[in-house]
Amino acid sequence: MKILISNDDGISSAGIYALAQELKKIGDVTVVAPLTEQSAVGHAITMKLPLRVKKHYINNEFFGYAVDGTPADCTKMGVRNILQMNPDIVVSGINHGSNTATNTIYSGTVSAAREAAIMDIPALAISVASHDVTDFTLAAQIAARFCMLVKEKGLTRGTLLNINVPDKPKEEIKGILLTKQGKSKWDDIYEKRVDPYGKDYYWLTGTLVPLDTSMEYDECAVKNDYVAVTPIHFDLTDHETYDKMHSWNIPDLSL
Amino acid sequence: MKILISNDDGISSAGIYALAQELKKIGDVTVVAPLTEQSAVGHAITMKLPLRVKKHYINNEFFGYAVDGTPADCTKMGVRNILQMNPDIVVSGINHGSNTATNTIYSGTVSAAREAAIMDIPALAISVASHDVTDFTLAAQIAARFCMLVKEKGLTRGTLLNINVPDKPKEEIKGILLTKQGKSKWDDIYEKRVDPYGKDYYWLTGTLVPLDTSMEYDECAVKNDYVAVTPIHFDLTDHETYDKMHSWNIPDLSL
Repeated sequence: MKILISNDDGISSAGIYALAQELKKIGDVTVVAPLTEQSAVGHAITMKLPLRVKKHYINNEFFGYAVDGTPADCTKMGVRNILQMNPDIVVSGINHGSNTATNTIYSGTVSAAREAAIMDIPALAISVASHDVTDFTLAAQIAARFCMLVKEKGLTRGTLLNINVPDKPKEEIKGILLTKQGKSKWDDIYEKRVDPYGKDYYWLTGTLVPLDTSMEYDECAVKNDYVAVTPIHFDLTDHETYDKMHSWNIPDLSL
Repeated sequence: MKILISNDDGISSAGIYALAQELKKIGDVTVVAPLTEQSAVGHAITMKLPLRVKKHYINNEFFGYAVDGTPADCTKMGVRNILQMNPDIVVSGINHGSNTATNTIYSGTVSAAREAAIMDIPALAISVASHDVTDFTLAAQIAARFCMLVKEKGLTRGTLLNINVPDKPKEEIKGILLTKQGKSKWDDIYEKRVDPYGKDYYWLTGTLVPLDTSMEYDECAVKNDYVAVTPIHFDLTDHETYDKMHSWNIPDLSL
């Protein structure tokens, strides 16, 4: 099993190391990850600037490739120029912090996996719901488990699995659930501050307000100590609204 | 009608000027746009760095606000700190270049509008299918028309309209169609080059291969001289695969 690994926390993060160590047990692993942290970059891709690739010695144990770009760049570069072939699966993570509900949109971790889905390669994104994770072992094992499951069952073309693991000891986790992307709202504001030269600057601050109360949704499941597995895709069409909008009679509009 | 305008080409682009001039006829316009071009940034949001906001005199005619961030940052900053209230609609564009099919994912133009949808504000993204647009008049008029239509008919919460206009004279455009996000594939590679110091660098290059042949899809409609109007949302859940994946019996998996 050929596995390409990326992330958004950067090639030196503890999460990608734990993931690579675990996935080496089930396949041939190549790590291609951002040189520096790329959180909340969304699905950015670098076109106006060139990229550089450097071999990077991870934890003095094995080589990976560091790219001075975004997570999606890393997937593309990994597949097109480093592997020069499609791997069997692309796994992105393990992220420090959950990527559930609305945060799925902003997530660099998800975008590295989604870039693979766009390229018709099965993919997983895996995150632990804490910014101060102490142990990635369980999440790494879950990633390996789902690599095997995807291999066995197959995944719809263009679909990826977005997996979120609570930051709890194994014995406190209640199980694994199939979920949907939850609804949430950022109650945010830019805090105004003044720099040492008397000029204003603004810093984003706020809290995520979850809007779901059912375990059917990723955010709620993770909050209640379940591992959440959400199949996502890149067809953004709102099919329900599309059906409703036939009543707008758009083709009858004159220019 | 209170209208917030943003884009990804930057506050000095011809597209945003044309859009603002036209929308002033139907409402009270505020422009909050990136200081510099932000194409293909996807739905990036700035959290690790502060933002600065500067009043910017557009074409020596009116003031807007330039933010040294991404399109999504501009929407958030515009709503939260500049307007300090929800506008009736957020309009993003007019983009130089189409944002159809897979490109919808990478688009900064779409992300500015999607950020509004996340904030429960109706939104439009509007693009002209050429990087060398000579006349934005028609696209600006179409944006104004759809602002009025959205006001009249309403839009599902969390949905935005992604509008793409062919770069053709009005008389050559065949009409307006309600469409879905098309399928396409980037046939791409990083071209390897060598810098003046003998070091390798890589530049993304490639062509978009459309995979649809029906006018039901945005890319195909625009290629065939129709204006394409696609309702999109930010629920990335692949509901079809979700239903199928019940057969994986995920809750029965042991940890």
